[in-house]
Amino acid sequence: MYKGIVRVNMKTLEITHEDVPEKWGAFGGRAMTSAVLLDEVDPLCIPLGKNNKLIFAPGLLSGSSAPISGRLSVGAKSPLTLGIKESNAGGQAAQILGRLGIRAIIVEDKPEDPGKFYTLEVRAGSITVVECPELKGLGNYDTVDKLMAKYSDKKAGYITIGQAGEMKLLAASIACTDRELRPTRHAGRGGLGAVMGSKGLKAIFLDDSEVSMRQPVDKEAFRAASKKFAKALKEHPVTGEGLPTYGTNVLMNIVNEAGGLPAKNFRTGSTDCAAKVSGEVQHDMILERGGKVAHGCHSGCVIQCSRIWNDKDGNYLTKGPEYETIWAHGPNCEIDDLDAIAIMDRMDDDIGLDTIEMGATMGVAMEAGILEWGDADGVIKLLEEVGQGTPLGRILGSGAKVTGECYGVDHIPVVKGQAMPAYEPRSIMGIGVTYATSPQGADHTAGYAIATNILKVGGFVDPLKPEGQVELSRNLQIATAAIDATGLCLFVAFAVLDKPEAFEAIYEMLNGFYGLNLGPDDVTELGKTILRAEVKFNRAAGFNEADDRLPEWCMTEPLAPHNTVFSVTDDELDSVLDFV
Amino acid sequence: MYKGIVRVNMKTLEITHEDVPEKWGAFGGRAMTSAVLLDEVDPLCIPLGKNNKLIFAPGLLSGSSAPISGRLSVGAKSPLTLGIKESNAGGQAAQILGRLGIRAIIVEDKPEDPGKFYTLEVRAGSITVVECPELKGLGNYDTVDKLMAKYSDKKAGYITIGQAGEMKLLAASIACTDRELRPTRHAGRGGLGAVMGSKGLKAIFLDDSEVSMRQPVDKEAFRAASKKFAKALKEHPVTGEGLPTYGTNVLMNIVNEAGGLPAKNFRTGSTDCAAKVSGEVQHDMILERGGKVAHGCHSGCVIQCSRIWNDKDGNYLTKGPEYETIWAHGPNCEIDDLDAIAIMDRMDDDIGLDTIEMGATMGVAMEAGILEWGDADGVIKLLEEVGQGTPLGRILGSGAKVTGECYGVDHIPVVKGQAMPAYEPRSIMGIGVTYATSPQGADHTAGYAIATNILKVGGFVDPLKPEGQVELSRNLQIATAAIDATGLCLFVAFAVLDKPEAFEAIYEMLNGFYGLNLGPDDVTELGKTILRAEVKFNRAAGFNEADDRLPEWCMTEPLAPHNTVFSVTDDELDSVLDFV
Repeated sequence: MYKGIVRVNMKTLEITHEDVPEKWGAFGGRAMTSAVLLDEVDPLCIPLGKNNKLIFAPGLLSGSSAPISGRLSVGAKSPLTLGIKESNAGGQAAQILGRLGIRAIIVEDKPEDPGKFYTLEVRAGSITVVECPELKGLGNYDTVDKLMAKYSDKKAGYITIGQAGEMKLLAASIACTDRELRPTRHAGRGGLGAVMGSKGLKAIFLDDSEVSMRQPVDKEAFRAASKKFAKALKEHPVTGEGLPTYGTNVLMNIVNEAGGLPAKNFRTGSTDCAAKVSGEVQHDMILERGGKVAHGCHSGCVIQCSRIWNDKDGNYLTKGPEYETIWAHGPNCEIDDLDAIAIMDRMDDDIGLDTIEMGATMGVAMEAGILEWGDADGVIKLLEEVGQGTPLGRILGSGAKVTGECYGVDHIPVVKGQAMPAYEPRSIMGIGVTYATSPQGADHTAGYAIATNILKVGGFVDPLKPEGQVELSRNLQIATAAIDATGLCLFVAFAVLDKPEAFEAIYEMLNGFYGLNLGPDDVTELGKTILRAEVKFNRAAGFNEADDRLPEWCMTEPLAPHNTVFSVTDDELDSVLDFV
Repeated sequence: MYKGIVRVNMKTLEITHEDVPEKWGAFGGRAMTSAVLLDEVDPLCIPLGKNNKLIFAPGLLSGSSAPISGRLSVGAKSPLTLGIKESNAGGQAAQILGRLGIRAIIVEDKPEDPGKFYTLEVRAGSITVVECPELKGLGNYDTVDKLMAKYSDKKAGYITIGQAGEMKLLAASIACTDRELRPTRHAGRGGLGAVMGSKGLKAIFLDDSEVSMRQPVDKEAFRAASKKFAKALKEHPVTGEGLPTYGTNVLMNIVNEAGGLPAKNFRTGSTDCAAKVSGEVQHDMILERGGKVAHGCHSGCVIQCSRIWNDKDGNYLTKGPEYETIWAHGPNCEIDDLDAIAIMDRMDDDIGLDTIEMGATMGVAMEAGILEWGDADGVIKLLEEVGQGTPLGRILGSGAKVTGECYGVDHIPVVKGQAMPAYEPRSIMGIGVTYATSPQGADHTAGYAIATNILKVGGFVDPLKPEGQVELSRNLQIATAAIDATGLCLFVAFAVLDKPEAFEAIYEMLNGFYGLNLGPDDVTELGKTILRAEVKFNRAAGFNEADDRLPEWCMTEPLAPHNTVFSVTDDELDSVLDFV
């Protein structure tokens, strides 16, 4: 077992261990990454420079038997938003790190020779860095294959970057392997793959084969809380039924019918494409081809929204593309072919790209006339160019903002430089408030107002009116930040919003595991603490109120079919994070 | 004569005239452009969108017989810096606008069809907009040639954009013709050519053949002040001797010897390249080939720092490239061939690109490994790509920041997104203060501390020490803003700094011309008013103190030969514009 904090210096290749300092003692996941960034990284540092740090932190409950507690937080100053970034991934990494007793790996500095790449080997007995020239230029799938051949350990987990990360492209993601050891679960947002690439870190090999499950301080209390939590998740219609059956793409028809599906680069709020790429259609295609539904992306998952997608011949191609991916590469680009979208998903995962950013980028590329609306083959060819690093590939791999800038586009769907995800802020105003004000940039997971605006979870706030959106987004942003600290999957929020016992179970699990005495207010305070740190970092990085705004056209161009504009006022937006 | 304010709506093609409103009554040039922007443009508007405005404003004295009063201010929200922008150009445009009684042309909205381009025809009797499909895709030289054939008026002036502006590239400039009707004088900085392109405005034809010189209210006082002013300029060694003889490139050897010449993308402060591209060498080459030294870029110029450059065969190629251009394409890229640099200058002028931004971009491209250091042929080929709009051309035409982002470069010499010009902030700290704090982004002309740091004009402040730089930059920024409102060339500042009578003559000319009673404090107050407006706009556009900083490496990587870092503190920087 390690001391908790592991520092890896990529210039000297030194590895040091230290106890978790008092000030970070109560932190895990996003609480940890954001605290380390605020305490140790100059907000004005160059994101791809030596003074940025890349932090991997499992949640507080990761590595325990708490249900669905395997989320990993990856943090750095983002080269895409130029602000603080926590990007959250599933897969096995967090569980393994948790079991190894590691609370954070802090990757510092960068090699003098930018052409050198390294693998960090993390085992129970030792942590070492080895050069890996054989992996250079490989995509995530080949990288993991080669690493598996080398380490031949079936219980291992891998964190890797593809060509995009090596090239330090702003849309580069960090891949985590799933239970099948495939690099399908990504810390996608904010270009953290580029930070990993800038540090010469191609891969992390994680091996917990010699350690066992983390044990709680109070076994009985922990077990009871875990059971209560799992039961609540099973009983809620979204987490117990909708998500396992149809996956996240259960949303496609729902959001389209609500007029909140951004189609054709956010030019309209619904499209005929949606029906052809819906969760229902996807579900049937998966089963027909011998794929898998109701699959967990990491061990201990009780929701099982992940799926496995086979190609027409019944061979594995990729994970079942998520709703946001299908939206981004699908309706957003007038593409309605799930097979083509699955190929794009596989390519994004392999090259190591954020699927949301890349889909949004392709929409901007179509707006710019680089290719026609609906041209799926064209998108696939362009993704190949990204992997190859051609000039056009580098433009696209730099995301929607840079692509729009290079082609003079005046309709670029970004906030703080990051592409807006699969929900229209003009017809789902709660999510618009989150996009505008989250310190993370446009990010649906930072305060998922869709739950209450559309799914009527946790009550109902009319998505077409400004009233109530500020409070909704504020509460969700606080709750989300806290959940992101625990290692619990954000999807537990559906049950938490509707069932008091689910919320109770969260702090009861923490109490049982750590022997604490937390109450509901402590959870809220944890969320606020995280947001305070993030806002403080961003202000020092150069952000002010004007950065907490949607693109101008969201307020001036009414969106079909409801013909609404985003009408939450600037003053209201400035009140969202009023507690910082 | 017109009412003063001319509005051109590029969507409806309507042209309206209005009196100068009271609030803008005392404004010209930069005072006018910045006031219009603050009063009428949403600081959060999309720079290439319909709600940005492009403003052309001659100085208060433009069109009069005041010596060297023909500078034009062009303003808009910058697509490069995302803040307020005034870009200042020589050539004939301001004199003609002044004589026509136009205080500002405000270009609004944009055509529904982004493929349409128009020419604005401004004559004494009428102002009209005509479509000009025949100019589409042409460079500035061909554009002006075609316009001259059409209008066949030798007294005319032309304001045009090349391919870069049509493509809305972030480094696109706006060209103004000089006395020989060549498009050599550019509002280069901040990508205003892209704004002009976004509005579908390809060219402005200016014809003052039917009007005469503007007449002062108090002829005698005006004539006396003008004479006093011209005399002071003639007597000062910089404006009376250095600039006419060697042009702006008189600086090359001086700045290199001071260790303040950014070489190899700001990696060192001096280089052997400098001697081969110095003003002295340039001077002799120009005369050998039958070119011209001591030439004025606009009528009424008494400094005559412009020159005409002929190629090896003695044929006109371009204006004599300015110091900043020679630095950017030369020592900054390890290129020491003046003929190659002159070709680049001609290409920049023709395609319509800011020479400073493009040279800095080529330095970043070399840092990225796109081409070798010193590869002049490679740069010329890349500039061709910019004109053609290839993907790589679009990257480069988007400037140093985007180029660095697309290629993962961690050493990008920009402030507020705009490339730093030809003076190293680590060894000439006064200019570093200006780069950091000017609302315009990195801009040597916003507060030319070189005068006092290096040329010992207006006293001496040691360039290698932080002491005194804040006050120096503050005073220069205020004085510069005021000068930019008058239409006087910034180079008058050399005499103004050393000779009290030169400063007096400025407000005496204004008093004589307008029948006013201004004193020295009024000039200072005018400068402050301009800067207040600009800072206010920028704050509302999202800037805060953190944006008033140099790139991180200026504070951390010592620069040879003096091995200094920029050591003016953050608190000191925040005090520069303390009057706003």
